[in-house]
Amino acid sequence: MRSPRVKMRRRRYAARIAYDGTDFSGFQSQASGRTVQGVLQEALERLHRAPVPVVAAGRTDAGVHAEGQVIGFDSEHSSLDAGAFPRALNSNLPADVRVLRLWEAPEDFHPRYDARHRHYRYQLQCGESLNPMSRRYALWIPRAVDAGRLNELLAPLLGCHDFRAFAAAGDQSASKVRCVTTASAVPGRGLLNLRISGNAFLWTMVRSIVGTALMLEQQRAEPSAMQEILAAGDRSRIGAVAPPHGLFLERVDYND
Amino acid sequence: MRSPRVKMRRRRYAARIAYDGTDFSGFQSQASGRTVQGVLQEALERLHRAPVPVVAAGRTDAGVHAEGQVIGFDSEHSSLDAGAFPRALNSNLPADVRVLRLWEAPEDFHPRYDARHRHYRYQLQCGESLNPMSRRYALWIPRAVDAGRLNELLAPLLGCHDFRAFAAAGDQSASKVRCVTTASAVPGRGLLNLRISGNAFLWTMVRSIVGTALMLEQQRAEPSAMQEILAAGDRSRIGAVAPPHGLFLERVDYND
Repeated sequence: MRSPRVKMRRRRYAARIAYDGTDFSGFQSQASGRTVQGVLQEALERLHRAPVPVVAAGRTDAGVHAEGQVIGFDSEHSSLDAGAFPRALNSNLPADVRVLRLWEAPEDFHPRYDARHRHYRYQLQCGESLNPMSRRYALWIPRAVDAGRLNELLAPLLGCHDFRAFAAAGDQSASKVRCVTTASAVPGRGLLNLRISGNAFLWTMVRSIVGTALMLEQQRAEPSAMQEILAAGDRSRIGAVAPPHGLFLERVDYND
Repeated sequence: MRSPRVKMRRRRYAARIAYDGTDFSGFQSQASGRTVQGVLQEALERLHRAPVPVVAAGRTDAGVHAEGQVIGFDSEHSSLDAGAFPRALNSNLPADVRVLRLWEAPEDFHPRYDARHRHYRYQLQCGESLNPMSRRYALWIPRAVDAGRLNELLAPLLGCHDFRAFAAAGDQSASKVRCVTTASAVPGRGLLNLRISGNAFLWTMVRSIVGTALMLEQQRAEPSAMQEILAAGDRSRIGAVAPPHGLFLERVDYND
């Protein structure tokens, strides 16, 4: 009698991952520099003894952190089903990247094109001195910040608008229309969190919104100022793009 | 007419400081290694052009963090009263140490001998994967931890006891009696916080308590087990001393 043989099948997998962006030149592999995609592909190649391309929901910039980035890749690896695979992957990854969960996805799943909703959080620490434990994870604003005014300034961004005023010059998107569903300032545990969610975002859009809101808050501007910048679509009127180390990709939502 | 002259007077100052212990060989200056006391004294010497000895409420071990350490030092520096001094001091300190507040203290103030109460927090992250942003600030326990049982195990420590079982071999204290006023496990924001407060602590006492509570929790031991270790005063029965990177000196209380 022949032993039963399982026919190897190529499956698509998805994983939720977290990383500390401090020591990465962003998510996406590039000619030089340590990238999240690079270390993930190296770990997967070590386990598969063959290259395994990885795709992500969002290509976070250098220094931006993630608590709930979603990646996808294909594999025939037999131990993937065993639940032991995330552990094997984590033991092949550096300490600043962790796989939180891994599951089999539909074979046509694409982490970026199928994403319905992205949730970002920008952490501010406001006041005289920065807590040294937050220095890699929050922007220090050495003054009191009016959270109520920030909320008023962010409100006009809610809804679907052409956000070209907040896009980096290099943004390649054909349409600059995006739908923002959350834009608010929420105090919590020594930090002021700016929560910004939407269906998708243009390049540097979240950090440009944060920088502009902070500039207008300091000027004690009315919410109409944000409204006017949005309507004019003029990059020259926005504030400085907020630095990456305060930004977290918190979660990505899919239909199922 | 002669211009009025202010007679320089030596004053005692106190400051509340925070530091990220990751890259320090502890608080206290020693023959080699970067210490918190060392960088504070260097910054003060630069501002005073003379050595300024610094004393602290608690000499935290290598790797232990502080959010509310209290230090004391003497100074005749004229700008100390101006409120600008904390800023000058911070601009002379590395980013992992910050002066949060500075005030003039009674001339016989001693940060250690006058301290009435010390509050520590030990951060645990329990579960399959460690959040990479917490890797320097929480001990990862790769399993579920029963917070209720931890609370039961910690309860017998409340009150004044001889804590020699939990002291490092090198502890020099004449009396090993200390009074613990808080010993509890409090879940919060992805972490399990062990809160331990008391009038004072023996060397490695907090981390020995944490290590022992975690050992007994894993063994599903009854609270009587902690009670017996305490009563026996036998170091050989305690758990491994928990690593320093989860420990925070949160606050020190004084009479006024």
